[in-house]
Amino acid sequence: MDRIFNFSAGPATLPQAVLEQARDELVNWRGSGMSVMEMSHRGKEYMSIHAEAEADLRELLGIPANYKVLFLQGGASAQFAMVPMNLLRGKTSADYLNTGEWSKKAIKEAKKFADVSIVASSEDKNFTYAPAQNAWQLDPNAAYVHYTPNETIGGVEIFWTPETGNVPLVADMSSNILSRPIDVAKFGLIYAGAQKNIGPAGLTIVIVREDLLGETLKGTPTMFDYKIAADNDSMYNTPPTFAIYIAGLVFKWLRAKGGLAAMEKENIAKAALLYDFLDTSEFFISPVARENRSRMNVPFTLKNTDLDEEFLKRAKARGMIQLKGHRSVGGMRASIYNAMPIEGVKTLVELMREFEKQHA
Amino acid sequence: MDRIFNFSAGPATLPQAVLEQARDELVNWRGSGMSVMEMSHRGKEYMSIHAEAEADLRELLGIPANYKVLFLQGGASAQFAMVPMNLLRGKTSADYLNTGEWSKKAIKEAKKFADVSIVASSEDKNFTYAPAQNAWQLDPNAAYVHYTPNETIGGVEIFWTPETGNVPLVADMSSNILSRPIDVAKFGLIYAGAQKNIGPAGLTIVIVREDLLGETLKGTPTMFDYKIAADNDSMYNTPPTFAIYIAGLVFKWLRAKGGLAAMEKENIAKAALLYDFLDTSEFFISPVARENRSRMNVPFTLKNTDLDEEFLKRAKARGMIQLKGHRSVGGMRASIYNAMPIEGVKTLVELMREFEKQHA
Repeated sequence: MDRIFNFSAGPATLPQAVLEQARDELVNWRGSGMSVMEMSHRGKEYMSIHAEAEADLRELLGIPANYKVLFLQGGASAQFAMVPMNLLRGKTSADYLNTGEWSKKAIKEAKKFADVSIVASSEDKNFTYAPAQNAWQLDPNAAYVHYTPNETIGGVEIFWTPETGNVPLVADMSSNILSRPIDVAKFGLIYAGAQKNIGPAGLTIVIVREDLLGETLKGTPTMFDYKIAADNDSMYNTPPTFAIYIAGLVFKWLRAKGGLAAMEKENIAKAALLYDFLDTSEFFISPVARENRSRMNVPFTLKNTDLDEEFLKRAKARGMIQLKGHRSVGGMRASIYNAMPIEGVKTLVELMREFEKQHA
Repeated sequence: MDRIFNFSAGPATLPQAVLEQARDELVNWRGSGMSVMEMSHRGKEYMSIHAEAEADLRELLGIPANYKVLFLQGGASAQFAMVPMNLLRGKTSADYLNTGEWSKKAIKEAKKFADVSIVASSEDKNFTYAPAQNAWQLDPNAAYVHYTPNETIGGVEIFWTPETGNVPLVADMSSNILSRPIDVAKFGLIYAGAQKNIGPAGLTIVIVREDLLGETLKGTPTMFDYKIAADNDSMYNTPPTFAIYIAGLVFKWLRAKGGLAAMEKENIAKAALLYDFLDTSEFFISPVARENRSRMNVPFTLKNTDLDEEFLKRAKARGMIQLKGHRSVGGMRASIYNAMPIEGVKTLVELMREFEKQHA
């Protein structure tokens, strides 16, 4: 079979042009006589790849000079510990917003290291919305405020940036980074696992204001110390070089498309195709509050859940996979990150329309 | 230029056949319509890759059933903390052998968590040999004994397995794993960063006896808990899927070559080419004690260090790169892991012979 439409929540589909370039360069990168995988991380070839990836990411997100960009390992799950270990900085409490499964994981891990205060929660409605800013109970003495601007499982996205005064704002942007422009200066720290909108699994990107670095909890492993990573340009030890190379190709692809403003337009158009259909359907249901409907992860359920399997089978027959929803939400979930072509979304909506006609 | 001979200490050269297969499968893995990089780690395609990689590694090393194989991130440097955080198990002290730069890093990190006792050290002779077993001052109450059977920088390898009685033996095999058969049952835990003899950087393999798991230090991040990784088949969160796929291809390549016994023969032959020449040379010097000469990393110096740059230039002109030695040893270092073809070593020895004739 040719390329399929892969709606996986992560690892997720990558731009075909990036994969083709990676293929063409795989055995012999630009006449160097070696694969990127084989390059010493201290050699000039890899150093140029590394520096260019960082420069392109800085350009795309407009990252101010007083922010460090770190290429780390361990996924967002490692960040759940690294954030408190590095950002408590002599304080003992931290504020967390609870909007779903990933918030809950971040909170659970933070409790190992800090007194966690929940500023607001949407658990009352099974995480189908995000609490408005005026409902947040912020503690001005908290070390930081942590939130998850896009819940990959629940499909709940927050499109505004919370105001937290002098308390640093920390965001797990694993599933919506690079999907639209953001004002990095409003954040103390942003982190994202790569395997959704950036590149292959095994790379985690951290963007952190440099004045927040340098004071870790006692017992913090060296590899969990942001300052050490920052002081060594993410080369304290061998970084995940091939994943950084692929991420760099994705950054170039984004720049060639016109950057994040252009990407946002495409993402709005793709998401609208799905949500507009869902709004007219009497057969498929979007469980998420209108103002928090994620542009990246679109969960929807069938009124008749007995037809779930039949729908998945039909989707697969048309070259669409990984549409099964997370067990905590049920139904379906279409993850439509930057690299999902609009044709994929159109094909999905077509099937939904047909399926409804047949079964409604 | 075509393929070069890359003597990098890591990331290092990979088998050409593996790279070519990865290239051919890169955009569309075996008719799945997607790249391995794009596969959900919970999907059947990736699950089969993951399971096969583990099965092949178990076969190659003869790993007993009571040992877990973990695919982790963070490199050996993360293990330097994970080992004490997981293996102290209520004790407070651990024994470490000090044979060079990597031992020293492991020791420094362990001191954050444990009372470290140095059982023996070769620092007296600038780490050019390994202390014999009868010189080790073992503490029968230590939580474990840690050593580095191959020092990548110093080129010092230990070919015998230390006897530590009931105290678990822990080995950092980053630079010699899979280079020869070992008896896994003699170890409590083996770890190795992938980027030398296994695959791409960003993957770390841990082999651990399962009765050692389940008692971590307070404050151990979830991602640093071996038990959690073991209970979740290394999928507590998204593993570095593409790196595991490449490692799996390397394991298949090793099995096709006849496994580790066959590989050891090749490695002995390759190393002998270099050491035999060094023994006859009056111009190039091996600094390492004969019984500890590494088969993986061969440091050597020129009697006239003014000629170092000239030698490196000549090597490059013949398609040989990354021969410059680590600054702590000086001179040259040829890393000749499993994937370095014997032709590479022959070409190097030829150049050395010529160079000596010209300059001696």
